[in-house]
Amino acid sequence: MQIAIVLYDRFTALDAVGPYETLGRLPDAETVFVAEQAGPVRTDTGALALTADRTLAEVRSPDIVVVPGGPGQIPQTENPVLLDWLCAADATSTWTTSVCTGSLLLAAAGLLQGRRATSHWLALDALTGFGAEPTGERVVFDGKYVTAAGVSAGIDMGLTLLGRIAGDEHAQAVQLLTEYDPQPPYDAGSPLKAPAHLVEEFRTKSRFSLA
Amino acid sequence: MQIAIVLYDRFTALDAVGPYETLGRLPDAETVFVAEQAGPVRTDTGALALTADRTLAEVRSPDIVVVPGGPGQIPQTENPVLLDWLCAADATSTWTTSVCTGSLLLAAAGLLQGRRATSHWLALDALTGFGAEPTGERVVFDGKYVTAAGVSAGIDMGLTLLGRIAGDEHAQAVQLLTEYDPQPPYDAGSPLKAPAHLVEEFRTKSRFSLA
Repeated sequence: MQIAIVLYDRFTALDAVGPYETLGRLPDAETVFVAEQAGPVRTDTGALALTADRTLAEVRSPDIVVVPGGPGQIPQTENPVLLDWLCAADATSTWTTSVCTGSLLLAAAGLLQGRRATSHWLALDALTGFGAEPTGERVVFDGKYVTAAGVSAGIDMGLTLLGRIAGDEHAQAVQLLTEYDPQPPYDAGSPLKAPAHLVEEFRTKSRFSLA
Repeated sequence: MQIAIVLYDRFTALDAVGPYETLGRLPDAETVFVAEQAGPVRTDTGALALTADRTLAEVRSPDIVVVPGGPGQIPQTENPVLLDWLCAADATSTWTTSVCTGSLLLAAAGLLQGRRATSHWLALDALTGFGAEPTGERVVFDGKYVTAAGVSAGIDMGLTLLGRIAGDEHAQAVQLLTEYDPQPPYDAGSPLKAPAHLVEEFRTKSRFSLA
């Protein structure tokens, strides 16, 4: 089984690394990081690059597609090379997945039409524009399409999908090995829980950055 | 303020990316990935490389040092280049931190002598061998030394330290932006919670791999 994790300029690192570190522990699976060009791909902060070992053209029929989000997703919604690849890969994939605003790329490729899906909480409305039905859930399954909420939700998505494919016990072993027993110092990880003025500040800013 | 995240062959990606994605959102801070040689550094699975943009020699006095763990940590406990760098960087750092078995590198450098510290649950005993006092906590502060438990605990450590430095509100904003509202599909993320036979299997295996 082959897992392709798609990189593009200014993706968010944890969006990609969460599923890599969990779902990527699928027995006998090969995980490959792919991008339009092979080589280092910079994250949204500019302070980190992850290596794409293969080009999109070299990886034509992965069993699982993982699309991270990040500010760099916006120009990619008009990149025919990536969107065509997503459509072609999806035609033969067993699972097509995304984290954060990666779902907007699946949606822009026409893959989430009429489907329940999620995204970063600031981007849920944008899903509607592509004909998807946004939900506020953290991990959403609709057929073979699995979408996760913002950034860190890719860890929960990765473990959940790992359990579906390899069984609960294997997923629990990976949870134990990654010591995923979260103890956040605050309870501010969703717009329903964070201080209201922070939520409002981000919503105001995002009106200018997420068209 | 400069944050140096140390990479070495066969580190665990999430150990480094958790603090990067949280603590790295410190206002006006520069995060730099460093390694003995600059360039791509492969993770423990071999399927991913993160780029070290600078050599250890080029980054001499970071304000915050972050040392990830991973299977590649074992040979590094005898690498004088890395251990000398850790000692020198620690002499001027404001915070010296680790995730997972990264604490064994701090300990091997002599920095955790008599200090309370944590590590991956399978490596807690090894801390004792270096004169540290292991605890079962997820994030441990002892003076300027901050150690986190296995792999995913670096996210909690990063947010906690971010709150100490930049204030609770900034850390909450980062938690909200990374949508860190964890909902693991299982409750198996610590040896106290996981199925006992899984814990025992890993303990048996680790007797051979963690000397």
